[in-house]
Amino acid sequence: MQRVREHRPQEFDRVLSSMCTEPHPRAHEAAVEFLATNPGDPATYQTVADLETEAIDQLGEIAGLDDPFGYVASGGTEANIQAVHAARNRAAGRGDTARSDTPNIVAPTSVHFSVTKAAEMLGVELRTVPVDDDHRADLDAVEAAVDDDTALVIGVAGSTEYGRVDPIPAMTDLARDAGARMHVDASWGGFILPFTDYEWSFADAPIDSMAIDPHKFGQAPVPAGGLLARERETVDALAVDTPYLETTSQATLTGTRSGAGVAGAVAAMDELWPAGYRQQYREQQANAEFLADELAARGIEVVDPTLPLVTASLSPATFEALRDEEWRIARTADGNLRIVCMPHVSRASLEAFLADLDRVRS
Amino acid sequence: MQRVREHRPQEFDRVLSSMCTEPHPRAHEAAVEFLATNPGDPATYQTVADLETEAIDQLGEIAGLDDPFGYVASGGTEANIQAVHAARNRAAGRGDTARSDTPNIVAPTSVHFSVTKAAEMLGVELRTVPVDDDHRADLDAVEAAVDDDTALVIGVAGSTEYGRVDPIPAMTDLARDAGARMHVDASWGGFILPFTDYEWSFADAPIDSMAIDPHKFGQAPVPAGGLLARERETVDALAVDTPYLETTSQATLTGTRSGAGVAGAVAAMDELWPAGYRQQYREQQANAEFLADELAARGIEVVDPTLPLVTASLSPATFEALRDEEWRIARTADGNLRIVCMPHVSRASLEAFLADLDRVRS
Repeated sequence: MQRVREHRPQEFDRVLSSMCTEPHPRAHEAAVEFLATNPGDPATYQTVADLETEAIDQLGEIAGLDDPFGYVASGGTEANIQAVHAARNRAAGRGDTARSDTPNIVAPTSVHFSVTKAAEMLGVELRTVPVDDDHRADLDAVEAAVDDDTALVIGVAGSTEYGRVDPIPAMTDLARDAGARMHVDASWGGFILPFTDYEWSFADAPIDSMAIDPHKFGQAPVPAGGLLARERETVDALAVDTPYLETTSQATLTGTRSGAGVAGAVAAMDELWPAGYRQQYREQQANAEFLADELAARGIEVVDPTLPLVTASLSPATFEALRDEEWRIARTADGNLRIVCMPHVSRASLEAFLADLDRVRS
Repeated sequence: MQRVREHRPQEFDRVLSSMCTEPHPRAHEAAVEFLATNPGDPATYQTVADLETEAIDQLGEIAGLDDPFGYVASGGTEANIQAVHAARNRAAGRGDTARSDTPNIVAPTSVHFSVTKAAEMLGVELRTVPVDDDHRADLDAVEAAVDDDTALVIGVAGSTEYGRVDPIPAMTDLARDAGARMHVDASWGGFILPFTDYEWSFADAPIDSMAIDPHKFGQAPVPAGGLLARERETVDALAVDTPYLETTSQATLTGTRSGAGVAGAVAAMDELWPAGYRQQYREQQANAEFLADELAARGIEVVDPTLPLVTASLSPATFEALRDEEWRIARTADGNLRIVCMPHVSRASLEAFLADLDRVRS
């Protein structure tokens, strides 16, 4: 234990860079109770397997899908990989010999890098298309990129860098027209978008699959991601046979899985859906707007925070000076400061950050 | 919380089917402390990232490898997938135009089904070869299967169904002769094999990579698997660029990862390596031999338990009757009873199992 004792977990009061957060106390409690369980072996660990079914049903309700299929994944990366995986396998079954051997997937440049992982692993071509001036997928570019070999179009609902929501219904139309499937990455946005006017969910468009992570705005402990699918065939396309387990197949990317994540997710959703999540969204949206206004008042160029995520231009020297003050902050690929207003972020913490910013800039 | 409260985790006293176990109390404690951390974002969660480095160094010591490369994976499935992934990518870089487009991997039929997942995902051909009468990879069959397109040979060190260790040094020679790499799946066996005479480790043969799971015999909480590699290039072959993280690349299959698993693994290894693991191995090997003798004394055909795993023939009716008594037991693909003597398995529990067996058979 000595080496663990020498390391303390970070405090969250200076973590402004993470898309994860402190689990809700009830979620923490449930995770601890189910720490020694494995939903990947449901015949042995039956009760946590039952909880996983409840988690998927609840995620379906949040994402506007009756009778959802899917599972609690290790995170958004796994959910995105498996969405590409299922689409690749289902496209291979389309039986159209005119198609080439290499299927493609189409996504905006704002798509999470897990999709790059997926394409590289799965041997599909990733066609990234430009975003418009508001950092949302450009529809003309999507239309130009899809063709008969397109297996999947991916839209982002709450992008990692700017918190933007792609035009999901229109992208879904383009996917359908090309005979492709449609996946929405709502890993980060899924637990706040129900309280906005965005069109993003299974109820808003005939999308096929979604990544939606309890361990981000859902306030569940890591690892608790979510893969949802409208059709059973999507999950079936991922299944391999499982000798030596008393179940017949497994659609997950991983084998042994965390019961702590599953139980924590159920506990958090029980506690917070919908009122608690609505309140959290409102508080953090207000925090993001407060921070954006304060930065703008200091003459800093800020991108309008349409969801609780603030990006702003900041010199590398100032950025490094704030990192030296133990602020956990991150940058976009373009070098912009990026602050994610997750549930653990308080107004007091943002005020302390602004005070340090003023000090290091003076 | 209500729905979680309606479900209790299983008790472990009747779990005879799992390759996971109750975490060591120190590991449990460390996992709880680090529940809200993410080693997948090391610039934000620095202390748990440091712990991961210590975990890999310690795993290297157990597996006979100085200066190990690798990471704490979600489990043996991810470690096996990434070993195949790295071998595929490195083989593609061999630049030999005589090779075909589809690389192959060679493994015994006893290999874990995660390798089937890996091959299917990664577009490589899995060539499974027969095992000998003692359930170990047949060397002649391996030799016949490898060719110029072989990217990887996989040997199992502690097979899932019979607890057998393949002839790793000889398989490594065959892999080398074909210009292929060698991976050892010691997911289950890695924490007990150091106390046996088997040749299985990086010190015993010039193998390239290994899966070795703290969350099995290592007594760490789920999710804590391990991928080890002798060369940096193996991990580099998996890396994708990571915009918006303050680190430059990521070699893991998943993105966000469990700090609980990492901290729990370090705590368990600190506490138990090597004396505690040696004692656990001796106790469970004795338990396995006790159970095997007792089953044989009842006229049941038993496979010699060369590691702490007992397989025996049992009628489907008797198997089902024992499941009805809440015994968590599993079967091999051939229908044999399979009991894994993990650290939570007590002699008293095995005696209770035998008493129930006598009752349901009479």
